[in-house]
Amino acid sequence: MIKARIYVTLKPGVLDPQGDAVRKSAHVLGYRQVEDIRIGKFIELNWEGDDPAAALEHIAKLSDQLLANPVIEDYRVELVEGA
Amino acid sequence: MIKARIYVTLKPGVLDPQGDAVRKSAHVLGYRQVEDIRIGKFIELNWEGDDPAAALEHIAKLSDQLLANPVIEDYRVELVEGA
Repeated sequence: MIKARIYVTLKPGVLDPQGDAVRKSAHVLGYRQVEDIRIGKFIELNWEGDDPAAALEHIAKLSDQLLANPVIEDYRVELVEGA
Repeated sequence: MIKARIYVTLKPGVLDPQGDAVRKSAHVLGYRQVEDIRIGKFIELNWEGDDPAAALEHIAKLSDQLLANPVIEDYRVELVEGA
């Protein structure tokens, strides 16, 4: 089994209303040092198989089709070593 | 300015209906090798200041209060080197 982590982030320039709301809440709580905050997804995936190259290719395709919205989001796939 | 990354994940044992739905959709798309998938948050935060120890302490508190739900979620704070 292969373990992968996928990081999905909004592309630079895309507005992040959720992040803005959290920044404002942080300021209300007294954390004025929070300048900017952007919220993405952190996905942990277990893949049946033992070919890392094939897994990486398929997981990238899956990310494009299902996990991220390629119009507004970037993603990065990372295989976990020693898993 | 200090850059931090916060990874928020569901605690082990906490059900992840969103992850289950994505796993089923992956299977429908033909990615039968997806065994398990868990979806968390990946937060990028810019912190005004230049004391990494203080930033880490405050961001951990902020995570407890605002970014994660400590009852069902774990979080990990990472300061980005060289930022």
